Amino acid sequence: MVFVTKFDGTRQPFDRNKVIGTCIKKGVNRAAAETIADMVESKVYDGIPTKKILQMIFAALEPHRPAIKHQTNLREAISLLRSKPDFENFVQLLLKEHGYKVDPNRIVRGKCIEHEIDAIAGKNGETILVEIKHHFDHHTRTHLDVSRQVRATFEDLVEGFGLGLNSVNFSKALIVCNTKFSEHARQYAKCRGIACIGWNSPPEHGLEQMIEEKNLHPITLIKGLDAKTEEKLGDNGVILVRQLIEHDLDKLSRRTGIKKDKLAILMKKAREIISG
Amino acid sequence: MVFVTKFDGTRQPFDRNKVIGTCIKKGVNRAAAETIADMVESKVYDGIPTKKILQMIFAALEPHRPAIKHQTNLREAISLLRSKPDFENFVQLLLKEHGYKVDPNRIVRGKCIEHEIDAIAGKNGETILVEIKHHFDHHTRTHLDVSRQVRATFEDLVEGFGLGLNSVNFSKALIVCNTKFSEHARQYAKCRGIACIGWNSPPEHGLEQMIEEKNLHPITLIKGLDAKTEEKLGDNGVILVRQLIEHDLDKLSRRTGIKKDKLAILMKKAREIISG
Repeated sequence: MVFVTKFDGTRQPFDRNKVIGTCIKKGVNRAAAETIADMVESKVYDGIPTKKILQMIFAALEPHRPAIKHQTNLREAISLLRSKPDFENFVQLLLKEHGYKVDPNRIVRGKCIEHEIDAIAGKNGETILVEIKHHFDHHTRTHLDVSRQVRATFEDLVEGFGLGLNSVNFSKALIVCNTKFSEHARQYAKCRGIACIGWNSPPEHGLEQMIEEKNLHPITLIKGLDAKTEEKLGDNGVILVRQLIEHDLDKLSRRTGIKKDKLAILMKKAREIISG
Repeated sequence: MVFVTKFDGTRQPFDRNKVIGTCIKKGVNRAAAETIADMVESKVYDGIPTKKILQMIFAALEPHRPAIKHQTNLREAISLLRSKPDFENFVQLLLKEHGYKVDPNRIVRGKCIEHEIDAIAGKNGETILVEIKHHFDHHTRTHLDVSRQVRATFEDLVEGFGLGLNSVNFSKALIVCNTKFSEHARQYAKCRGIACIGWNSPPEHGLEQMIEEKNLHPITLIKGLDAKTEEKLGDNGVILVRQLIEHDLDKLSRRTGIKKDKLAILMKKAREIISG
């Protein structure tokens, strides 16, 4: 059996089905995915880093999906968004596209103190306190401290509502982050009824799946987008690949101060990514 | 009116009574303190940093209290202790000397998860959950996140006790840290019945006062003690100035691996500080 080495140094058996899954997620058909998996399987060696496998897959996908060469890894792309306001805005958009009514960040009075809330989301009669957490290092975990803070805030707000200090009848709390959760954080949150959305968590319904399902890729997915340009776009509310192509080149260049030729290249790449 | 500039850049009127207070705390009599305050008052200028005033006071105190030349500032000294285990052990000692029964850190099962408790303290029939927080930057504040985490942990442990998952009947929570608390943290903690001990907080009964009252000065108060030596002493349970002089030079040198001549100098300084 061939073992692969994950980013955190742990090893696990090579799984050809994961290769197929990645390919299909990128939009190629089953037959092509199988062919790519055959190629990868023939080349893996004991101890190969998963990052190297991902590079192989991306290279093999290019003939099928030419726009892939313009894309960085989604997980890395999200980590490159500014924490505030871009990742917060990104999560708010994500929730809206998935049928939530979303109020952006505001201050709500609890029993003991006023709390800064990242977002208030509503769906199916629930009013949800949303805590948004962004890590630049996407390989880290979101830990127990966040779950405990959310629990204490939720308690304070609910008691504040009972005392007539606020008019937001929170029924639930939700943490959205760009990493996985530590086991301790997950266990505590579950026990306290706090929902958790993070990278691949919950499995099959995590952040990645919410993005792919509605094509809500962040602009940082575009290869060659530097931090300064990302900020200028973010300051003008452009945080999704698809938002970039909704704009008129001249107007957006004037508004953001990004040079026209630079912006034209980014928009061309964005169009290719979208049309896939 | 002459204004002084505090470390955080804010300004406040020069207060001669504060100079007198500092001198008396250092053990000189009222008359000598008044004389020093006169000298300082004649030298302050608008915008003078409070640090400069403290240096003037220390220099003026030297003839009265020769051991002062061997001492760094207490607030800075505490920040120089290692967070773990030295500051934790230091706080446990402090609580013991102030009449608490103290169990060191352990794991206790709550309703949702197991929690790592920094200490469990008992006094007057109360069983107190103690959270110990150490900052290297003693000018920072201990913020709301700590108060909220302690609240959530306390709730989980109390509910765990109710369910028979642990046998520690916590009645109260306490945060001990080496900085001041943010206003938000203090307000929330008070409302949730969490006691807070920090630098000068509560005023007149804070960490500084607890130390001075029982002469529990940390070894880092000794000028010229480097970090490596502090670690070697800490690893052998020596974290107070007064613990240092309780030891036999030869034995302590062998146990810690600190050279005898170096250790002898430290012990001499410690003796002078203690005898004041």
